[in-house]
Amino acid sequence: MKIDGKDKRSLWFEGGRLKLIDQRKLPYSLEIFVAKSVDNVVFAINEMVVRGAPAIGAAAAYGMVMGSQDIIKTEKKLQQTRPTAFDLFYATSYMKNAIEKGICPLIAAEEYVEGIINRCRKIGRHGEKLISDNSKILTHCNAGALATVDYGTALAPIRAAHAKGKKIFVYADETRPRCQGLLTAWELKQEGIPNSIIVDNAAGYYMQKGEIDIVIVGADRIAKNGDFANKIGTYEKAIVAKENSIPFYVAAPESTFDQSIENGSKITIEERNKEELIYVNGKRIMPEWASVKNPAFDITPKKYVTGYITERGIIKK
Amino acid sequence: MKIDGKDKRSLWFEGGRLKLIDQRKLPYSLEIFVAKSVDNVVFAINEMVVRGAPAIGAAAAYGMVMGSQDIIKTEKKLQQTRPTAFDLFYATSYMKNAIEKGICPLIAAEEYVEGIINRCRKIGRHGEKLISDNSKILTHCNAGALATVDYGTALAPIRAAHAKGKKIFVYADETRPRCQGLLTAWELKQEGIPNSIIVDNAAGYYMQKGEIDIVIVGADRIAKNGDFANKIGTYEKAIVAKENSIPFYVAAPESTFDQSIENGSKITIEERNKEELIYVNGKRIMPEWASVKNPAFDITPKKYVTGYITERGIIKK
Repeated sequence: MKIDGKDKRSLWFEGGRLKLIDQRKLPYSLEIFVAKSVDNVVFAINEMVVRGAPAIGAAAAYGMVMGSQDIIKTEKKLQQTRPTAFDLFYATSYMKNAIEKGICPLIAAEEYVEGIINRCRKIGRHGEKLISDNSKILTHCNAGALATVDYGTALAPIRAAHAKGKKIFVYADETRPRCQGLLTAWELKQEGIPNSIIVDNAAGYYMQKGEIDIVIVGADRIAKNGDFANKIGTYEKAIVAKENSIPFYVAAPESTFDQSIENGSKITIEERNKEELIYVNGKRIMPEWASVKNPAFDITPKKYVTGYITERGIIKK
Repeated sequence: MKIDGKDKRSLWFEGGRLKLIDQRKLPYSLEIFVAKSVDNVVFAINEMVVRGAPAIGAAAAYGMVMGSQDIIKTEKKLQQTRPTAFDLFYATSYMKNAIEKGICPLIAAEEYVEGIINRCRKIGRHGEKLISDNSKILTHCNAGALATVDYGTALAPIRAAHAKGKKIFVYADETRPRCQGLLTAWELKQEGIPNSIIVDNAAGYYMQKGEIDIVIVGADRIAKNGDFANKIGTYEKAIVAKENSIPFYVAAPESTFDQSIENGSKITIEERNKEELIYVNGKRIMPEWASVKNPAFDITPKKYVTGYITERGIIKK
């Protein structure tokens, strides 16, 4: 991804340490979080210094490098961070197998991460074909380079369409409670792709008005039957898109497809802490007495999905 | 409505001045805004010191009292504030007719306001029958006493059910950008009605889980065919409710029904200023470079509505 015109990744390994763009600070300031230990990586995943299923997987892969002296314990620690993103489990299992086979942990992790980047690039290449010239695209949350090391999943086809010279416009759902839509807008601005942030409530309004031609989102875990977990609110967008006959695509690499889970009802939904709703950008917005609930993901049944954009091509239902 | 145990209204006329609970300050602090002139009333409506279609109507009625020396000019000024809420036009027209007939303006305004309160009380009485014991109810925005002088529209049946001893729980959508869900939670807390605030994105999650038995919302304008305008996001909730076979009701008095408009496509949607998204509770949350769009209302077609709760009873489709 471009940051101030230079090619960057959302995280990288350097001098025995994992460096991550601190996504808690964006888009207000660009800061690098340095993880010096497995516990630091656990913190980074828990606190959402890094977020987005493929990026969590990448961070976990490097975490396995740092904790390779005891891979059982390291894997357990990392797996206990966030339950919904499948990439976390996919990455730790990949690393465990590689290390057990005697492969150098860092080489295995770098291969894993290059694999993610390549898959995202391919997702971009395949998905770009779905985006016509003069299209308006809705996306939810951030499924960009920040969420995936580079390119993104949902944003990869958007980057590719822009690179091909297609004139496009992106509506970025704000995505309460953590407002990852601002990360999306920040990435798009860095690439020069025209966009607007809208409140989550307004997506339906623009769909109804015929202002949105296609919806593309990422995924945290996709069950065998095609049901998928993604950021809270995705389910609503999918239903409203279907109701308005707008194609709805899920962009994800193989590391997000969980073949061991039959359908969405089996996916664990993380309930995150209430402070995420109560504070916005460090400012308290809910009174002391307010009772809040904060499910972080929802499940979208496959019937609302037009197709899945993967590194192998578009899988239509 | 109860405020700290005492019976209050959201606005009232006293000593030639209109006093309004300042809804920009709630739920953080309870302050009274004093409007001494028509221009002050115009400001209060524009800036959302007062909001909610019936309350805007009530404020406008008192505004007509303050500007009764030139009712044509006063009506024009008031009508130019906010285009979507029909009650504003209904109230100014009611007042104009009354004054032209020689009725004392203040008596006419007090009658108008008592009429709103009575209608809301009746909406409560009728709507309460739709709420079973142990129900969980979703509402969007604030259609409570604050929005209607007293009782509320959507909240009137909820208050009545609670008063009858029914055990209920309310999910209050946060309702970005202005977070009027906090006003709803504040009103419910004052009445001792259990509730939680959820982000707008989470409503679908709870509907899908079977956690919501009924959805009740207010309206800003209802067209002849039943299509209605309400706070942005209502349209999405209505579709998702229908998809989950959850009854979806609109609670509104006759002053919100616009018989001159055939259907929803003819209702003007107000696009409000971008600062509403950019700032939350006085804190800037969007970067300088962010492009934002802010439609304040959306149109829900009648096909998603189970019924309308009015002062005359429940109108099923």
